[in-house]
Amino acid sequence: MATTDDDRRPKYQRIADSLRGAIQSGEYGPGDRLPGENELMAAHGVARMTARQALSVLKDEGVAESRKGAGVFVRSFRPLRRRGIQRLSQQQWGNGKSIWSADVENRALVVDRVTVSEEPAPDHVGGVLDLSAEDTVCVRRRRFVLDGKPVLLATSYLPMSVVAGSSITEENTGPGGTYARLAELGYKPVHFREEIRSRMPAKDETDQLNLSPGTPVILVCRTAFADEGRPVEINEMTLDAASYILEYDFDA
Amino acid sequence: MATTDDDRRPKYQRIADSLRGAIQSGEYGPGDRLPGENELMAAHGVARMTARQALSVLKDEGVAESRKGAGVFVRSFRPLRRRGIQRLSQQQWGNGKSIWSADVENRALVVDRVTVSEEPAPDHVGGVLDLSAEDTVCVRRRRFVLDGKPVLLATSYLPMSVVAGSSITEENTGPGGTYARLAELGYKPVHFREEIRSRMPAKDETDQLNLSPGTPVILVCRTAFADEGRPVEINEMTLDAASYILEYDFDA
Repeated sequence: MATTDDDRRPKYQRIADSLRGAIQSGEYGPGDRLPGENELMAAHGVARMTARQALSVLKDEGVAESRKGAGVFVRSFRPLRRRGIQRLSQQQWGNGKSIWSADVENRALVVDRVTVSEEPAPDHVGGVLDLSAEDTVCVRRRRFVLDGKPVLLATSYLPMSVVAGSSITEENTGPGGTYARLAELGYKPVHFREEIRSRMPAKDETDQLNLSPGTPVILVCRTAFADEGRPVEINEMTLDAASYILEYDFDA
Repeated sequence: MATTDDDRRPKYQRIADSLRGAIQSGEYGPGDRLPGENELMAAHGVARMTARQALSVLKDEGVAESRKGAGVFVRSFRPLRRRGIQRLSQQQWGNGKSIWSADVENRALVVDRVTVSEEPAPDHVGGVLDLSAEDTVCVRRRRFVLDGKPVLLATSYLPMSVVAGSSITEENTGPGGTYARLAELGYKPVHFREEIRSRMPAKDETDQLNLSPGTPVILVCRTAFADEGRPVEINEMTLDAASYILEYDFDA
């Protein structure tokens, strides 16, 4: 770490860089407590405000997080590995398993805040699903909570003309979930498109996902297509970026 | 937008929500100027600090950005669409096209800050590439600049035992790039794994990508495999999240 006299970084930045380096090298591991303001003041001969600013830099980057009354800790990153392609293979939903079970291994996954309703199609949804202005969609909203931490919000849109009368319109879609029911209705999903973006969360996303400051969200918009390229579902997902690695495996 | 008396949101939050709603509905489009502090003060009967806080909420979310002396504007989001699977198909690099050209259509893409060096393998790279402690890697660093805006930093690692003496160790890798050269060397990439994360940028990433406040980065780590699952390249990419949509298309 350069600390020569011609180093023009402000002091708090130098301290932040040095702490970040120590985290990256493994000197401080996930969940470890970082030196507090008093320790940084003593070690670097700086004022409290400078020490506080240095810790703020790491918190804003999402590298560290405050715990009330206990100090500042290296953010634990024990992410879910979400395999985009294998998890949507027919072996998964073809035999009654939820497509989500692949992600969670031995961890406790709870789905809460499930709501199912019939609504007019939002413009961007109607456009992709090829609906006319008077067509309605079945909207399934839910939240996924892993080990007590909310990690994902999902909203699925399906044409009512396809799903009316099926258990897709009920809270519990039955074994194999929505995709197994779509197959029974003659609209088996055979192709998927996933579009991925990232941005900082809006207030309601921060609240619903209980996000720490400095944590972005990943947006995944999945479109499921049945035979002949017919779009049958749009699923808009909002992921806590500190909780996920997305993985895609494919051949050249 | 709810503005009844039992609305408990602070005033600045209500103003921010109302502006965000107007952006989402299209009343203010990308690049449009938002009402300034004076206009918000007059329209909502609030103090300057409240108006300023409302605009800060949108800037922190990455929805809006300040331009010096001109006001606060809706962030232009004219992203690149990066198709993860088609773009790595052999038709692309098999006939001399760069895999990047698929992303940019008629826009001006410049690759700058290219460096090529021989280095000891970082631990995580050596582990994935199956290298022993004394093996070195060819490290190719570069930055991609689109329409004058830096959008992506990339660092590729390739085993020196594979690429020594080839033009992969030179700045200009020749037609078809690194993957065409690997094929000539007998290590044609046949399989890819892409792992995706998102977090807030570190200071040097903000500088190199010229990121606005409130903009996360997307990290894509791609591993290229030759026959028999032999890993031949790791490419660690850092993307400006405001500039990219990643897309993956695949069959069930």
